[in-house]
Amino acid sequence: MINKKRLQKEIEKVSTFGALINGGVTRLAFSAEEKNARDYIKSLIDEIGMSIREDAIGNIFATLKGDENLPAVATGSHIDSVPLGGCYDGTLGVMCSLEAIHTIKEKSIKHKRDITLIIFSCEESSRFSMATVGSKVISGKLNKQKTKELKDKSGESLYNAAREFGCDVENFEKAVLPKDSFYSYIELHIEQGPVLEAKKIPVGIVTGIAAPIRYELKIIGRSSHSGATPMNKRADALAGASEIILGIEEIASKKVGDTTVATVGFANVVPGVLNVIPGEVVLGVDIRDIDNKNLEKADKLINNLIKNVLKKRGLSYELKQLTKDTPVKLSDEIIKLIKDEAKKLGIKVAELPSGAGHDAMNMLSVAKTVGMIFVPCVNGISHNTAEEINMEDVYKATEVLTNTLIELSNR
Amino acid sequence: MINKKRLQKEIEKVSTFGALINGGVTRLAFSAEEKNARDYIKSLIDEIGMSIREDAIGNIFATLKGDENLPAVATGSHIDSVPLGGCYDGTLGVMCSLEAIHTIKEKSIKHKRDITLIIFSCEESSRFSMATVGSKVISGKLNKQKTKELKDKSGESLYNAAREFGCDVENFEKAVLPKDSFYSYIELHIEQGPVLEAKKIPVGIVTGIAAPIRYELKIIGRSSHSGATPMNKRADALAGASEIILGIEEIASKKVGDTTVATVGFANVVPGVLNVIPGEVVLGVDIRDIDNKNLEKADKLINNLIKNVLKKRGLSYELKQLTKDTPVKLSDEIIKLIKDEAKKLGIKVAELPSGAGHDAMNMLSVAKTVGMIFVPCVNGISHNTAEEINMEDVYKATEVLTNTLIELSNR
Repeated sequence: MINKKRLQKEIEKVSTFGALINGGVTRLAFSAEEKNARDYIKSLIDEIGMSIREDAIGNIFATLKGDENLPAVATGSHIDSVPLGGCYDGTLGVMCSLEAIHTIKEKSIKHKRDITLIIFSCEESSRFSMATVGSKVISGKLNKQKTKELKDKSGESLYNAAREFGCDVENFEKAVLPKDSFYSYIELHIEQGPVLEAKKIPVGIVTGIAAPIRYELKIIGRSSHSGATPMNKRADALAGASEIILGIEEIASKKVGDTTVATVGFANVVPGVLNVIPGEVVLGVDIRDIDNKNLEKADKLINNLIKNVLKKRGLSYELKQLTKDTPVKLSDEIIKLIKDEAKKLGIKVAELPSGAGHDAMNMLSVAKTVGMIFVPCVNGISHNTAEEINMEDVYKATEVLTNTLIELSNR
Repeated sequence: MINKKRLQKEIEKVSTFGALINGGVTRLAFSAEEKNARDYIKSLIDEIGMSIREDAIGNIFATLKGDENLPAVATGSHIDSVPLGGCYDGTLGVMCSLEAIHTIKEKSIKHKRDITLIIFSCEESSRFSMATVGSKVISGKLNKQKTKELKDKSGESLYNAAREFGCDVENFEKAVLPKDSFYSYIELHIEQGPVLEAKKIPVGIVTGIAAPIRYELKIIGRSSHSGATPMNKRADALAGASEIILGIEEIASKKVGDTTVATVGFANVVPGVLNVIPGEVVLGVDIRDIDNKNLEKADKLINNLIKNVLKKRGLSYELKQLTKDTPVKLSDEIIKLIKDEAKKLGIKVAELPSGAGHDAMNMLSVAKTVGMIFVPCVNGISHNTAEEINMEDVYKATEVLTNTLIELSNR
């Protein structure tokens, strides 16, 4: 039913904003590259004839009108990327949602409710060390003060970055939406893992979303001359950091559950030169699990590891928790609905959890029901310029999304 | 004999160039801060009535005239610093040498030979990953092409930085000096280690200088989503780097000699964000020993470690050797001369090797004899804003330096 050629063309077009020479994109939240991509997508929304509203944090709500007295059926994702990221993480969900709505409009398919495309602001944590900012704001999980405290590497706050981007941050509070503002929210996304590809299944239905606990760990040693300081007189912050990085790897690999993962994503070394023993290292630690018991166990083990390693080495530290989210389960009802729609289309599906976090997590606070549709990604690779998808899978997933939206909008 | 008050005042004055709020300095090679410090010291040189020459790489030669047909007696050090460094590393040697010459001039002490203060360019490797650049150039160990290849973090070459600093880099070749251009070179420096302080000895006489072998190691893994990538599907460049950092620490601590040290001074992580498994890490590795056999053994063990760890983890790598210097022994004759001068002054001395590299190393190629005088530093700390010295030790070391220069200049 959908227009495959148009969908492919528009995905390719959006991939040009922030495009890198050897493939992939760098399109950070509130960057000029994201602005250009937004402007292009807004022009498509205008052509379809949808109404547009933007909120104080930059979330875009584009609506195909139905009965405005009923809560809308929503769908969407994000278009910001990690640095050196892929073309499909987030963007695919936005473009497939837009194609679904375009199809419904041009084929004059009956829909009782409004159908709203949401393009969320700042989903990636790369810039401000906090993920799903846009959906956190509308669900009341992030206040204005906190957006002034979150800073990027250059020291700019999330609040100021949003303001300079053109967001009406003064009216921050108006962005918060009441419970059940939406009848439903369905997000299509690439899997970002290897499960569907291994099973040769084109469409995944998400059963639950893993949540991260995140820390910034500052390790304080003593800078000293790298030639003149004997090995037994050192307080090397980077050697201490290394022992912690390996310990975290071991805990997540062997000491908790199969679905537990933990990552040290950055290590900022001060002063970071060849002839000085590192006096300070700041690590970014990310711990996730779909199972909350596992998540809490891993968190405890990692906290103990940090304490023990740094005590043994005579290093001091400051441990700051950046986020602590709880894993969520998606409802059996919405899983069944998506499965039924796929079945009617003759498309094979598999159920799986999401290791990555998504805006869908927060939408549970403002939508009656939330579902997610996954598309396989090649070699399970994402957050990498080599991120790749199979368009045949995308077409199938978009057909399932379209029919699911039609079904929900007529309930 | 020296003017203690003047010496202390001028050391304090020079410490204001590039001064940090909580003590210490950041005065990188070819920076505005270094330029201001040079200009101030040149004004002092003018007041004393010494002649000044600057060479193509920015080394300053300030001479108190004697018999110009004889090779000069030289003394000096450097005034560039590491980032977040101390006030005395290098600068102390320059200011004590200047005070020694000032004393000789104002007291009209007989000196047959020219006495030349040398302020070396770019001694610290912090900016261009190569140490003792100024003395390498005059001793013919660094050619013009190489200065175009060495880059700082911003991508600027050493060659361009020197040119923008005002150096006559076009005439690079003229900076190279013939063998035995100087009768002697004596450098006063802070110890940068804990030996003299532990022995409560105010003046050290250096027996030899350790040399570094340095590498830049690029480890290549695979960037991937930190939430959605199972632990057993990862190629985490930072986890691999951590295993290497700990292995290097173990080799230097336990597997070679007591004087062996090895340091990983920087770790640049790409993309370096919370939600992406690091795809690439670049490490700076520095290996040193006063004993060449130990140095070569440590180098071999570290090369094997890198190969084995990265093979086991399925990571690829590029290993670039930045420098490979040979440790040097200083002559018994100069050690005895400095010891005799100290004895005449009633000052206690101890002999010790230098773990840090110094311009004195390279001066062996252009001076008939080379010696070094060390001043203890508090807690053995250097390359740190907390670097501190005891002025009573400085006065004693400067008296020894002054008398050593007078003795050498009349030979």
